[in-house]
Amino acid sequence: MNEAPLLNTALTERLGCRYPIVQTAMGWVADAKLVAATTQGGGFGFLAGATIEPERLEAEIQKVIELTGGSRFGLNFHMFQENAQECVELAIRYRLKAVSYGRGPDQATIARLKAAGVLCIPTVGALKHALKAEQLGADMITIQGGEGGGHTGSVPTTILLPQVLDAVKIPVIAAGGYSTGRGLAAALAAGAAGIAMGTRFLMTTDAPTPASTLERYLAVKDAGQVRVTTAVDGMRHRMIDNAYITRLERAGPLRRLIIALKSARQWQAETGMSHGHMLRTFWRGLREDPAAVSQVVMAANQPVLLRRSMVEGLADQGILPSGQVAAAIEHLESAPELIAGIVEEARRCFDALLGRLEPGTGNSYGNNHDNNHGNNNGNDRASATATAVAVDADSAPQPPRETTR
Amino acid sequence: MNEAPLLNTALTERLGCRYPIVQTAMGWVADAKLVAATTQGGGFGFLAGATIEPERLEAEIQKVIELTGGSRFGLNFHMFQENAQECVELAIRYRLKAVSYGRGPDQATIARLKAAGVLCIPTVGALKHALKAEQLGADMITIQGGEGGGHTGSVPTTILLPQVLDAVKIPVIAAGGYSTGRGLAAALAAGAAGIAMGTRFLMTTDAPTPASTLERYLAVKDAGQVRVTTAVDGMRHRMIDNAYITRLERAGPLRRLIIALKSARQWQAETGMSHGHMLRTFWRGLREDPAAVSQVVMAANQPVLLRRSMVEGLADQGILPSGQVAAAIEHLESAPELIAGIVEEARRCFDALLGRLEPGTGNSYGNNHDNNHGNNNGNDRASATATAVAVDADSAPQPPRETTR
Repeated sequence: MNEAPLLNTALTERLGCRYPIVQTAMGWVADAKLVAATTQGGGFGFLAGATIEPERLEAEIQKVIELTGGSRFGLNFHMFQENAQECVELAIRYRLKAVSYGRGPDQATIARLKAAGVLCIPTVGALKHALKAEQLGADMITIQGGEGGGHTGSVPTTILLPQVLDAVKIPVIAAGGYSTGRGLAAALAAGAAGIAMGTRFLMTTDAPTPASTLERYLAVKDAGQVRVTTAVDGMRHRMIDNAYITRLERAGPLRRLIIALKSARQWQAETGMSHGHMLRTFWRGLREDPAAVSQVVMAANQPVLLRRSMVEGLADQGILPSGQVAAAIEHLESAPELIAGIVEEARRCFDALLGRLEPGTGNSYGNNHDNNHGNNNGNDRASATATAVAVDADSAPQPPRETTR
Repeated sequence: MNEAPLLNTALTERLGCRYPIVQTAMGWVADAKLVAATTQGGGFGFLAGATIEPERLEAEIQKVIELTGGSRFGLNFHMFQENAQECVELAIRYRLKAVSYGRGPDQATIARLKAAGVLCIPTVGALKHALKAEQLGADMITIQGGEGGGHTGSVPTTILLPQVLDAVKIPVIAAGGYSTGRGLAAALAAGAAGIAMGTRFLMTTDAPTPASTLERYLAVKDAGQVRVTTAVDGMRHRMIDNAYITRLERAGPLRRLIIALKSARQWQAETGMSHGHMLRTFWRGLREDPAAVSQVVMAANQPVLLRRSMVEGLADQGILPSGQVAAAIEHLESAPELIAGIVEEARRCFDALLGRLEPGTGNSYGNNHDNNHGNNNGNDRASATATAVAVDADSAPQPPRETTR
């Protein structure tokens, strides 16, 4: 059961998953099948509640429960979606382990979710948002470095993670740039409770993403081509460069607004969103940030464009949100295979690290985890440590230290 | 002596420094005083051989040796500088521990340096350059993620570091985004041999940088303001946004070329660089990459603009190369204080990690390092481990696992 102590963190303990690996909620990608596959692989998945049609949402939640035999997964939602309140109710009714969100619900809703045992895990891209999220009552926090996909900040993970870890008391999950066991080991050593990945889960055989679109993700070899644009919805949005984005950027602000208004109408028609809700959403946007009028309108661009690539498979006519890490991912595999590989590599990293502490042990941490528990393990480590200290004391291969301090 | 086994790496062993922390060579910043302070603090520093006047270079090397009582430091140079060959000779003559460079010297020169015991540690920003550097004979390699300062690539550290660690056999030093002990612990856990930092050492009281310029670095609170421009010399160059850069970018390509030609003349006058060497440098640039004519001319911009900010203290009339990490750095301290703080924090990170492996030990790794060596330490760890395993076996606070796999 406790097969890998270094991989047991506040995340695995509180979310009840085997490994500290989170699959984030990507629009039209994080469906019941992907979340179930992630769960079965020992990770923790979030359903993309913001793009699942409201009338299908409950069925999608039930599907994950059926497939995994439990409710050890999460639901992502945004307060600006029409069925936001229903998302809260469903999370509570089905006793989901957690919800995730960007700009969060109000403090009272957060308190209600927490009281019902649903952990609140917002995603933030800047230190000040992390502090705000903790203050509002978040149970954990996911920081996403600027190299991450979709809406993203400008602070890379190497900088944001230490900043937030120093500033908050709640567990921190690291996102942005992760796809490997080396990354997991690094995040845990820094003090994170785990890692969260979007792009890497999108690029699995369990994602519903059409093959033609996945091919475009696999074709990316240059991280510089996974770039930030504000042309889609006025916010920093990281995606794989394509003809559509270039055209949108060339269009200029007014033309972009017209394109966005068209998208908004289309989005309204497709989702059956009421005029009333649409106006309320726009009004709220206007009130919160008057400078962002066109941004609010342009925000309607995103789901329409996303659907083209993620559902219809028209990669050139839609957008391809992605972390820069797509450039380092060379093949698709299933979510459980992915998780197993990352865990195995993280173990090797810790073995190498502990090997320096206790040179005699070889790969004790990784190799012993399945069959060597109890005091026996403790004794192995004890004798190995004694050897290590003796070796260290000689320190033969070390050059003399020219200490002048 | 061997006070921190997890901080002893291939880097400390081969470079002979106490901690796996490298101070990179920043033009007009990494002088004898900074390198000596770094050395005295237990780190490893590189002299900025590319900007130290040729006639002062040998004296600067001697100064570090005098101040530190040894030659445990490095020299950075570029093959396009007029005294490149002299740099090689000086590194060999003074038995410096290492040289660093970007585009490296030829294979024969590298072999010569290695034969003389001078380690070759190029800096790269992309996987393919790492492979090339290893093939040319590099002893170690520094990878710099795109968030790093000055000339920089487009792959962030979170992605580049695992990529390169998987691809090369030589030790890898991680750079780009580092300023903390959490970062050091993370890099070591991923498998790096250490970290290298530029901006963080620039922002110490041991750097010769004028106060007026350092104030500009301290004033940066937004990582997005430490941005990439190609306007200075045609290459990706990360620096703190200022009026000069904005003006340069607005100038357009032709006007920029004229500005650059002026800079080139000024640079030639100031450095006494011969017409012959300047023409040869340009010619080599043209031959290597015919598309980069203006880039070669524009390259003369950089040292002139750098001098204005770094030597003359005219932050607004020059450029302010910086990693995005400047936004996370809040105060100046001495290089030894900086190093001690990073080491202490990295130890706390490893303590926390090992604490999960052996909950009974508390902070044994960090607290025992100075006064508790030998078998005694081994015994402490042994009994603590036994306790830890017993606790793990109970695993009381863990929620039931809904394992379905």
